[in-house]
Amino acid sequence: MSRDLLAKVQSPADLQNFDDAQLEQLAAEMRERLVNVVNHRPAHFASNLGVVELCLALHLTFDFSRDRLIWDTGHQIYPHKLITGRADSLRTIRTKGGLMGYPNPTESDFDLFMTGHAGCAPSTALGLKAGDNLMGEADRHSVAVIGDGAFPSGIVFEALNNATGPVGKKFLVVLNDNKMSICPRVGGVAYYLDKARMTPAYGQWNKRVKRILPSIPLVGAQSEKWFQQAKDAIKATFHGGMLFEELGFAYLGPIDGHDIKTLRYYMEKVKAMDGPVLLHVLTDKGRGFEPAERDPVKFHAPAPFESGENGIIPLTKSSSKAYTDAVSAALYAEMEKDSTVAVLTAAMCEGNKLQKIREKFPNQFFDTGICESHAVAFAAGMAKAGAKPVVDIYSTFLQRSFDQIFQEVSLQNLPVIFTLDRAGLVGADGPTHHGTYDLAYMRMFPNMVVMAPGDQKDVAPMLEFALHRDGPTSIRYPKANLETIEREPTPIELGQAEILEWETDGMFLACGTLVVTCLQAAERLRQQYGLRIGVVNARFAKPLDKTTMLKAIEECGFVLTVEEGCLMGGFGSAVLEAANEAGLNTSHVRRLGLPDTFVLHAERDEQLAEVGLDLDGITAAALELARSVGMSTVASDSFSAGGTLTS
Amino acid sequence: MSRDLLAKVQSPADLQNFDDAQLEQLAAEMRERLVNVVNHRPAHFASNLGVVELCLALHLTFDFSRDRLIWDTGHQIYPHKLITGRADSLRTIRTKGGLMGYPNPTESDFDLFMTGHAGCAPSTALGLKAGDNLMGEADRHSVAVIGDGAFPSGIVFEALNNATGPVGKKFLVVLNDNKMSICPRVGGVAYYLDKARMTPAYGQWNKRVKRILPSIPLVGAQSEKWFQQAKDAIKATFHGGMLFEELGFAYLGPIDGHDIKTLRYYMEKVKAMDGPVLLHVLTDKGRGFEPAERDPVKFHAPAPFESGENGIIPLTKSSSKAYTDAVSAALYAEMEKDSTVAVLTAAMCEGNKLQKIREKFPNQFFDTGICESHAVAFAAGMAKAGAKPVVDIYSTFLQRSFDQIFQEVSLQNLPVIFTLDRAGLVGADGPTHHGTYDLAYMRMFPNMVVMAPGDQKDVAPMLEFALHRDGPTSIRYPKANLETIEREPTPIELGQAEILEWETDGMFLACGTLVVTCLQAAERLRQQYGLRIGVVNARFAKPLDKTTMLKAIEECGFVLTVEEGCLMGGFGSAVLEAANEAGLNTSHVRRLGLPDTFVLHAERDEQLAEVGLDLDGITAAALELARSVGMSTVASDSFSAGGTLTS
Repeated sequence: MSRDLLAKVQSPADLQNFDDAQLEQLAAEMRERLVNVVNHRPAHFASNLGVVELCLALHLTFDFSRDRLIWDTGHQIYPHKLITGRADSLRTIRTKGGLMGYPNPTESDFDLFMTGHAGCAPSTALGLKAGDNLMGEADRHSVAVIGDGAFPSGIVFEALNNATGPVGKKFLVVLNDNKMSICPRVGGVAYYLDKARMTPAYGQWNKRVKRILPSIPLVGAQSEKWFQQAKDAIKATFHGGMLFEELGFAYLGPIDGHDIKTLRYYMEKVKAMDGPVLLHVLTDKGRGFEPAERDPVKFHAPAPFESGENGIIPLTKSSSKAYTDAVSAALYAEMEKDSTVAVLTAAMCEGNKLQKIREKFPNQFFDTGICESHAVAFAAGMAKAGAKPVVDIYSTFLQRSFDQIFQEVSLQNLPVIFTLDRAGLVGADGPTHHGTYDLAYMRMFPNMVVMAPGDQKDVAPMLEFALHRDGPTSIRYPKANLETIEREPTPIELGQAEILEWETDGMFLACGTLVVTCLQAAERLRQQYGLRIGVVNARFAKPLDKTTMLKAIEECGFVLTVEEGCLMGGFGSAVLEAANEAGLNTSHVRRLGLPDTFVLHAERDEQLAEVGLDLDGITAAALELARSVGMSTVASDSFSAGGTLTS
Repeated sequence: MSRDLLAKVQSPADLQNFDDAQLEQLAAEMRERLVNVVNHRPAHFASNLGVVELCLALHLTFDFSRDRLIWDTGHQIYPHKLITGRADSLRTIRTKGGLMGYPNPTESDFDLFMTGHAGCAPSTALGLKAGDNLMGEADRHSVAVIGDGAFPSGIVFEALNNATGPVGKKFLVVLNDNKMSICPRVGGVAYYLDKARMTPAYGQWNKRVKRILPSIPLVGAQSEKWFQQAKDAIKATFHGGMLFEELGFAYLGPIDGHDIKTLRYYMEKVKAMDGPVLLHVLTDKGRGFEPAERDPVKFHAPAPFESGENGIIPLTKSSSKAYTDAVSAALYAEMEKDSTVAVLTAAMCEGNKLQKIREKFPNQFFDTGICESHAVAFAAGMAKAGAKPVVDIYSTFLQRSFDQIFQEVSLQNLPVIFTLDRAGLVGADGPTHHGTYDLAYMRMFPNMVVMAPGDQKDVAPMLEFALHRDGPTSIRYPKANLETIEREPTPIELGQAEILEWETDGMFLACGTLVVTCLQAAERLRQQYGLRIGVVNARFAKPLDKTTMLKAIEECGFVLTVEEGCLMGGFGSAVLEAANEAGLNTSHVRRLGLPDTFVLHAERDEQLAEVGLDLDGITAAALELARSVGMSTVASDSFSAGGTLTS
């Protein structure tokens, strides 16, 4: 048999040439390719190893040049990329200019939606079905593949509930059940699936049912009790899929997700059915790579590693602590002091580094699963009862809670704290994961206080400050290693910025992590151009420290606001608004931030450079602004090496 | 028996003094009070008549001075207000300074959350439970009452899925099943509840089950078929509550929601159970008022009426058409021309006046129920398939879709059109319903075009323009009667404002409905103060017509931006940002819009006056700005009556 079958697959149509044995071999080759790639690049891993056979069976059964396929969330898209013409470029995945780590319509027509947030696949697949119907192409099938981790997300239920009528025909939801969210999953649905998995699908007959059913009582309390017993017994037997069938779905499964023949058999069955259908497939996260099978949480998106005889050897050591660590540690310290402080996560226990908290404070720790809307409303309830909930969710995922932040938190003025991890650019995950909008949307809401630490020394005091507020607070921090500004920090006080250096040639008003870069830029501008530039650690985007901001605008030759957030309506706009209300001329003020485009995947440093928020970019912007207001910016000979920044 | 029992109920504790007959009488008195109030004031009606007995039974069973009660959405809160010390003030409901039409913690400690958006009650009630547990008060019960219309909302499912463990104890969800959303409901859950309602709760035994169960086959395809038949038969019999029991809830019901004794019997049962429990209660919307029972949709929130022998006589006639009508008519016209245009609503068919569309174009009309997140992702799928979906949702409710607008629509640059009704202040519904944030949040997203018609003549051309775009567009319009600016409108072109009057003393840059008020203000300023003020109909908040905006800033003595949206990050900020990027001095520019507070219920005109966005307010702001930039604003004797605006 040819050794390199994968090379023969330029498109899914090529799969039809293979017999069963060749398909098995192809699956093995795909796994090998995946392991090799992930060996030297941080990437989603275990979930991709788990869906190799599922991916092959789907493409063998359906023709996705016409039929529709959406991989929910999208981190398990690698096998799909391997067989849709991207096997050779997989080594570039998640690098600047390379393949995206998620579906990407610009890479292939087989990728329909660029995704990254969980749970929307059934909705979009159903929408594709409705659209195809309307366009006169009702013969197209539409398939959503969704993991059991994403499954409890509310929008999934909304979609299942809406799969009635014509849009439900030729509509298939594949539940890829690997018993994992990113972290071990939680909640009623998880329990339900556990039971479903243990239910013998066919043929076996539970003795309890046989015993209890014939004994039909007549009336009264005895009848009630009997009724419940009978129902319980029946559920234990017929469990599989009842939940879905109650919503109008035909249910098949659970079936072995690593047996291509079984998968194809059931998919052909499903294809012939009217729909909507839910096919329940069991897979093993990390399948075929023993260390990942053993520890799928660790191998969800591992650092590069080498696998040798002595096990797994990480190739990079990230010894430096990140902001996530600092926040987690600060939370831990507060929870130790006060048993009414609670931490909520939406399935991101690992990402938010809350494992120690989960272990140490089980009563104060709540993992809602991928249910951000619920998490925020739930936190509001806790706060109303007098507890001190901290909602610890990535900035991008908290977008799911926009309306709950409005109604349940801000409108009630409840002391819910939001710690927004991954605020700003996030690197390799790309545009779906950037924390772009939180500064802008959080400050829209009355009562909300919006903060961002300037360095690690701000972290714990900000949390402490928030815990003493009688109203909602958000604290955003980047996906970055901790930075330290050498100084004795001023205490955190409501709406007060920290003046790090006051100079009047120009001023950086910086909100959040880029404070440190601004200090470096100020230093470079002083050394190379003799400009004396001050730096303010804004700390608050709302309420804004108007005194300091307006003073800077009045006193300084130019002012540059700097933030790692969208320019539309963000911190810089808040400064403009405040200056405008005070009637100040702001023609010497400019704003730096994230542009009105989607920043593609790359390293975070590369992305910062791309949008002009690295040291070079900020320095250049300051120089340009200095020149535009008429300052002399001739490079000082004694310091400058005559680089690109000289005028 | 005393005639006025209601007067004796100052607090729910007083209910304990009544016997069964008195409770019946009290219920009748409460209904009478409700009918009398709603007779002369537009208010939520049918839903309140439906929950009188449920409300009494809840307060009789639990002690909500300690236990927790959340009425989901909150429009059915009137009976609760009647027995929690607010019977005498109910006549003030929904008027400025009077009772709010929704729960309001500032009115009573028995109202825990100010709400209006549907589906969050199970989450907040569960959060209250978790908070009470953490505060050492685990003995408190927590109850969420939720209608079957709100039930399919994703966050409900998220909450049910999270009611496991300690937070599920003493946690009760009452499903108030009146077979209605605001419009007739849709989807799998509705079908499920219909079936549940027909299931005999106890004692009866389905013959099909008895027939089929003993015949146990052995293996193979025959076995599969038998298994499915058996499951179907069993479901038909044991249907009640399986969906909820699968999620770990104990299920009771369905029970008669108008029989206080039955309600109390089951609630006592539930109170003694460990939890979580779902109690399924059947009620009739409009119960006790025959016209409302017959037409609960019409009587959801009717106009004032008189009921006489000849039936219902509306007391006010709203003969003038609203923006909602114009949008609906424009949609109708486009759907007639193009069968790939589709309209989506989230249970607001009546509110958005889509009944004619629903009837005429059933294949192009999609009601998702109260599932805004799904609706937007679904629309994205449709657009990807080549159809032209229009998402027709109130501005405030579209907040539920913030993340889907980001990921599913804007990131993919798909031609989904959003028609945002009720953008701006909405009057009597109050702070939960204002469309405050859409201008600000829509313009954050790359690819999104953000429009607002200046009058009714802009409506149809804007829709037509949007339908020809290859990208997402939002069109916002107010809850207001149509206005007409007498002119031949210029065509809608991307990012082009319409200059209505160009004058250089000052300029109104207005986005949306307040354009007409600005024209009136300009006229008044001319007549009374001799000021020549221009007016620009901005049309686009994004992309902004920079040419026109910057020209106004450069040429005019002052510039006032005007919008019915939040000042933080809204249209006015967009103007400031553009001017700032161009390096212009904006010290003679000011922004008018909605302040950083929550505007309470009142008539929309009262609210506009309160925030300074009525004719007087806008005129005064312009005058103040004119003075601040040094203009002479002495009232012209020939025109002025020497009113408050003279200097």
